[in-house]
Amino acid sequence: MALYFITGNQNKLAEVRSVVSEIEQLDIDLPEVQEIDPHFIVKAKLEAAKAHHQGEFIVEDTSLYLQCLNGLPGPLIKWFLIAIQNQGLYNIAKAYNNFNAEVRTIIGHAGADGAIEFFEGSLAGTIVEPRETGFGWDPVFLPEGHDQTFAEMSKDEKNKISMRSIAARKLKQHLDDQRNTAR
Amino acid sequence: MALYFITGNQNKLAEVRSVVSEIEQLDIDLPEVQEIDPHFIVKAKLEAAKAHHQGEFIVEDTSLYLQCLNGLPGPLIKWFLIAIQNQGLYNIAKAYNNFNAEVRTIIGHAGADGAIEFFEGSLAGTIVEPRETGFGWDPVFLPEGHDQTFAEMSKDEKNKISMRSIAARKLKQHLDDQRNTAR
Repeated sequence: MALYFITGNQNKLAEVRSVVSEIEQLDIDLPEVQEIDPHFIVKAKLEAAKAHHQGEFIVEDTSLYLQCLNGLPGPLIKWFLIAIQNQGLYNIAKAYNNFNAEVRTIIGHAGADGAIEFFEGSLAGTIVEPRETGFGWDPVFLPEGHDQTFAEMSKDEKNKISMRSIAARKLKQHLDDQRNTAR
Repeated sequence: MALYFITGNQNKLAEVRSVVSEIEQLDIDLPEVQEIDPHFIVKAKLEAAKAHHQGEFIVEDTSLYLQCLNGLPGPLIKWFLIAIQNQGLYNIAKAYNNFNAEVRTIIGHAGADGAIEFFEGSLAGTIVEPRETGFGWDPVFLPEGHDQTFAEMSKDEKNKISMRSIAARKLKQHLDDQRNTAR
C-alpha cells in the first residue's frame, strides 16, 4: 500500500523523502484546524485524508516557539510570517531582549490499520536578524551549537540536523519495525 | 424556523441577544479552521452547522488587530490570550511604543435558503495596561472617544457601543427586511 505525504510544500517533501525515500506526495487541500497543540492539527488532517483517499498517510506540522511570547506563535507561525515576515519575528525578540526559540516538527502517521502515531523532532536555538533568503523562517533561526542559520546551510547540512529530519528518522524506524514484524 | 446562534460563550450570546432577541443558543463544538480572514472561519462553521442541524444559523468571530504587529493576532487572539494573557498584549504594544488597535466582529448568517451573508462592526482604540477583570481582552481595550475600557463599563454601556452590537444591529436590520419582504 502506498505511503502518501500530504503536503503541497516541495521543501518539506524533499526533506522527509531524504530520510523516507518511498513516500509519494499527495497534494490535497485539507483544512487546518485552529489549535495551539499541533497534535490536534495533524490528527484532524489524517482523519480527513482517510475519508478522502485510500492508503497510509503522513502529515507534518512544524512550529516555532518564542520564549519571549511564552511559546507563541507555535503552529500559528505561518500567520506570523504572512503578517510580519522574518524581520518582524526578529523585532519581537529584540523588543523583549530574549532571542531564545525552539522549533518542533510533529509527524503523524496513519497506518493501514487506521492507528495514528506521532514522531517528534525538536531543536533549541536563537532568533537572529534575517541572514540569506530561504524557506519559511530558515533565515532567522540559528540552531544551538551552529554558526549558520538554516538558510545559510546547504540543504544537505540542514537535512542532517533539522527538527524535521529527526522526526522523519523516528518515522523511518517505526516503518522498518513494522515491516520486520510483518515478515 | 428557529434562528440559532452557534456559540458556547454566554457573554457573546447575551450581547447579540440584547439586539436580536429571538436567537436561540446552539452549543455545538465545530472545528475552527486556521485562517487569518475571519470570513473563512465563519463560513466554514456555518457550512458545518448546516450539515449537522436544521435551521437558520448565525456564527460570529471577533478579532483584535494590533497595529504594531501589522494586524496580528486578528482572529488568532484566543491563542494570544491563552499564551500571554492581557498583560502580554499590553507588553507587546509597549515594546513597540504603538498602542493602536482595532477590534472587529463578523457575524455570518445562513438563511433558510442556504445563502450566507456577513455583517461587520469595528471600533478603533488603544491597548492599555489591564484595568478591571472582564471577558477576553475587555480589560485592555480602550475604545476611541471613551475613558473606560470595556471591562470598566457596565454591560449595558458596552453593548451600546461594542463592535459586536454594531454587527448585530446590521443583522437585525437584515432579518427585519427579510420578514417584511416575505409578508
